[in-house]
Amino acid sequence: MKLYDYAASANCYKVRLLLAQLGAEYERIPIDIFGGDTLTDEFAAINPARSTPVLEHPPGHYLPESNAILLHLAEGTPFFPRDPQVYRWLFFEQADVVPAIGGLRFRLITGRLQPDEPDALRRRAAAHDVLALLDAQLAARQFLVGNSYGVADIGLYGYVHVAGEAGLELEPYTAVRGWLTRVEAQPGFVNDLDPYPANATAGAGRSIYD
Amino acid sequence: MKLYDYAASANCYKVRLLLAQLGAEYERIPIDIFGGDTLTDEFAAINPARSTPVLEHPPGHYLPESNAILLHLAEGTPFFPRDPQVYRWLFFEQADVVPAIGGLRFRLITGRLQPDEPDALRRRAAAHDVLALLDAQLAARQFLVGNSYGVADIGLYGYVHVAGEAGLELEPYTAVRGWLTRVEAQPGFVNDLDPYPANATAGAGRSIYD
Repeated sequence: MKLYDYAASANCYKVRLLLAQLGAEYERIPIDIFGGDTLTDEFAAINPARSTPVLEHPPGHYLPESNAILLHLAEGTPFFPRDPQVYRWLFFEQADVVPAIGGLRFRLITGRLQPDEPDALRRRAAAHDVLALLDAQLAARQFLVGNSYGVADIGLYGYVHVAGEAGLELEPYTAVRGWLTRVEAQPGFVNDLDPYPANATAGAGRSIYD
Repeated sequence: MKLYDYAASANCYKVRLLLAQLGAEYERIPIDIFGGDTLTDEFAAINPARSTPVLEHPPGHYLPESNAILLHLAEGTPFFPRDPQVYRWLFFEQADVVPAIGGLRFRLITGRLQPDEPDALRRRAAAHDVLALLDAQLAARQFLVGNSYGVADIGLYGYVHVAGEAGLELEPYTAVRGWLTRVEAQPGFVNDLDPYPANATAGAGRSIYD
């Protein structure tokens, strides 16, 4: 099993977290997004959307989309209870959480947006809507689905736990903070999300974002 | 089974299409998005993200997110083959297809964007990337996953078949056009997607978009 992986992507980190908790052995293939690694014909053959992560398993079979990988790896394990709310939270994550929190964080840290630009303000408002929604959801339960930890929590944890790096104050979201602590207390929890490297700065590298 | 539904939403139409092909009986609860129906406390209790569609089944249990509903309803049927590429295409749809094609179409038709504004140009470029990716994928196969029609096709068909209404010319995408025709030839195919009503026009109604 191989994971085409970028150390500073929370989408990739989500998969590494599940793999660690499953105790799965895999080979990590580093993809330097801002060094042009996803712009090659070779990478397009692995994933025409040119995104990371991509799981290769078995050899020659490629699965892109972080949450698709989470569902696939967790199939038949306690991390994926037979409850369609698992799907619900993972689609919500890609449609609403990633553009708001993840998109804002990436653009602010790498100098692609200034905090007072309209697109930053729009993403910040959307991010606070997301955090308020999650806070209300988590006020009544320990984890997102069925009161046990699983891929819905892993999927949402990826970008929510770094909301502060997007300038989003988590202090008012008590239930979210409690849930972050519970996720971090799970057996086998790891956090190996790297900071963005220098070549991720706007104008410094070659990527689908430039 | 109840579907909280908006006739002019392709996310809702996707679910209606699968329900028709499953021969499922359900009650359609019309939600007037631009008449303020999703802004009420009652709707927030059904779906705090205030989006449509929402499936209620069994009574009192609510499932939001169109693609979560597709996966849930198709579970155990031939529409959902045991292939993780089904997940991959449905996440790709929500992350890449909806903002590009669906978001552009909605904003142009309802006067929220003019075709030459930067956000429209950005979405148009992303939409052409999506269409080129799908065209390459479909050049080599009849359907998106495993050469049989299923929820991945239904999920992508929703917004791709109305790309023309976003000013996107489908003529160059031969394989996409062939696939649209094959989807439309499936047993039980229906298309009851309504045009946007007058109150969807920018400034005319009250919604999460205003």
